[in-house]
Amino acid sequence: MNPTKGATLADVAAAAEVDRSTASRVLNAGVGHRVGAATRERVLAAAKALGYEPNPLARGLRTARSYTLGIAVPQLENPVFPEIIFGAEIAARSRGYALLISHSDDAGGDAGHYAQMARVSRVDGLLVATLEHEVALLASLQQTSLPYVVLNRKLDGVGNYVVFDSFAAAKLATEHLIALGHRRIAHLAGRAEGYNGQRRLAGYRAALDAAGIAYDPALVITAGYTFEGGETGMRALIDSGAALTAVVAATVLTAAGAMKLLHARSIAIPTQVSVIAIHDAAIADMLHPQLTTVRLPLREMGSVATHGLIDLVEQKTEAIAHTLPLESLVLRASTGRPQA
Amino acid sequence: MNPTKGATLADVAAAAEVDRSTASRVLNAGVGHRVGAATRERVLAAAKALGYEPNPLARGLRTARSYTLGIAVPQLENPVFPEIIFGAEIAARSRGYALLISHSDDAGGDAGHYAQMARVSRVDGLLVATLEHEVALLASLQQTSLPYVVLNRKLDGVGNYVVFDSFAAAKLATEHLIALGHRRIAHLAGRAEGYNGQRRLAGYRAALDAAGIAYDPALVITAGYTFEGGETGMRALIDSGAALTAVVAATVLTAAGAMKLLHARSIAIPTQVSVIAIHDAAIADMLHPQLTTVRLPLREMGSVATHGLIDLVEQKTEAIAHTLPLESLVLRASTGRPQA
Repeated sequence: MNPTKGATLADVAAAAEVDRSTASRVLNAGVGHRVGAATRERVLAAAKALGYEPNPLARGLRTARSYTLGIAVPQLENPVFPEIIFGAEIAARSRGYALLISHSDDAGGDAGHYAQMARVSRVDGLLVATLEHEVALLASLQQTSLPYVVLNRKLDGVGNYVVFDSFAAAKLATEHLIALGHRRIAHLAGRAEGYNGQRRLAGYRAALDAAGIAYDPALVITAGYTFEGGETGMRALIDSGAALTAVVAATVLTAAGAMKLLHARSIAIPTQVSVIAIHDAAIADMLHPQLTTVRLPLREMGSVATHGLIDLVEQKTEAIAHTLPLESLVLRASTGRPQA
Repeated sequence: MNPTKGATLADVAAAAEVDRSTASRVLNAGVGHRVGAATRERVLAAAKALGYEPNPLARGLRTARSYTLGIAVPQLENPVFPEIIFGAEIAARSRGYALLISHSDDAGGDAGHYAQMARVSRVDGLLVATLEHEVALLASLQQTSLPYVVLNRKLDGVGNYVVFDSFAAAKLATEHLIALGHRRIAHLAGRAEGYNGQRRLAGYRAALDAAGIAYDPALVITAGYTFEGGETGMRALIDSGAALTAVVAATVLTAAGAMKLLHARSIAIPTQVSVIAIHDAAIADMLHPQLTTVRLPLREMGSVATHGLIDLVEQKTEAIAHTLPLESLVLRASTGRPQA
């Protein structure tokens, strides 16, 4: 065995006392006919003991796979996405796949972006993380003829997705404010036509309804998922003169922008306005005051989607569809009782 | 021409009125003998007009290249790295390469990490972004026998690197505080044995020296490059009872942690303690008060290193070594005159 090159298939076969073709059949699932369970175990144990890694070029030629997945993200600077990537990368590595990250500048992917990624980079499958609805997206994905899993939203006509329970998250955030005594609760919402924007608005409304608080459209502003959007949306709310004592922000960056505006107007958080956001990220701890959030399982989304995509690529499943539950309310300093 | 598959080599040859082998020679530099400049221009113009993309599988087999670069980052959650990746990704795409991102959990890369990445993922070259010095790193890199460029530090015995001028950045940050009237300036430093840690400490000391301020080791604490490190380091400084009116933080996350501690102790920023950080990132705008920084060209680092690495891969150069200049002081609200 050549230590600089790692164990070969022949090394594994010798250690397991089987012939090379048997070792190959075990280590390249799906190729050729069956191997008995005991033999299979022996080969896998030998491969593990020797640290055997299949030659990826040879493996790629044989199976026409690259053992590489692509993940397309709209905003690398949004702390939500590094967390999803983190979970995806660990899951991919654990299955022997590499993860290729593509950053789409245009918040959703232009027509052809995914097809190009598939063609140029030879990925076996795509994880598509998007913030917004794009008509072009579905057509572009279907053009690739590759397996793909959409993260963070459902698209009409797409069977494979992993989403959060955005409805429950917004409802929980709003219920927290209501429990503190707030009645004039604003919502810095995502896009009205977007999957998460709609679900979060519905969750916010459901919590108000359950508490007998009338829905006031003057308290809802479409702010989107950026720092700038949060600042602009909060400015519009304050400038409208609408009385409010609390705000549910669509995401952590939206909340950070809203807090910047409140600081600039010398409106005290939380004494004059409480702020809560959906998602959680390290930045929630860095804001002042620290931001109360509803935590969603970001790394788990990356992991579940990646395992699902590999199952699709390896034809172990035909479809994946998961709605991940929210994790918990993370109480920090940005929410409190309204002023008497 | 089949629109769903894109232009073929034959399409380009026909449009340029050359034979296929000539078109191939132009579009696959380094293969075969020379082609005249006018012919070459015509082929390149035709390829561009038709949006021709070489078949990567065929190209990979012919040249034994994957047209994929790997970038290893120690902290995806540190906003510095997404910016570097952003620059690298755009540069890679512009040269027809994909960028594979590997996140090393252990802040530097264990021995074998890079070798494994090269072997499993078939990358043509590696961009290695690290925070800290690891003895194992150099050995691991040399084990790959691939071209690589180290980002953000110099390593003994490594010729290919792109670094910032950390010395000048720390000097400028300290000079800013001195110009405001501060004399008791603390430094939350990076690791004492690290490239950037040493250079930043030296820059801080050089500014003090130039202003005739005695260096006081009690004002320097090794805090590293994390939020937690900044908080802990600031706590140690305050608890030591050392009189200080300002602090130079090694990076933006370090400053965020320091600010958290100052808020927790009700020490007003900047009236009681001014805070400045090296690097700049969106988060500097989200902190309260907003953080004054010395901006470093993060995207440019990603871009310069990527172009350099591709030049190494394509044997257009034998070594790259760049020290990028700092960009500017970004004045925000976290620095001001010391109290009288």
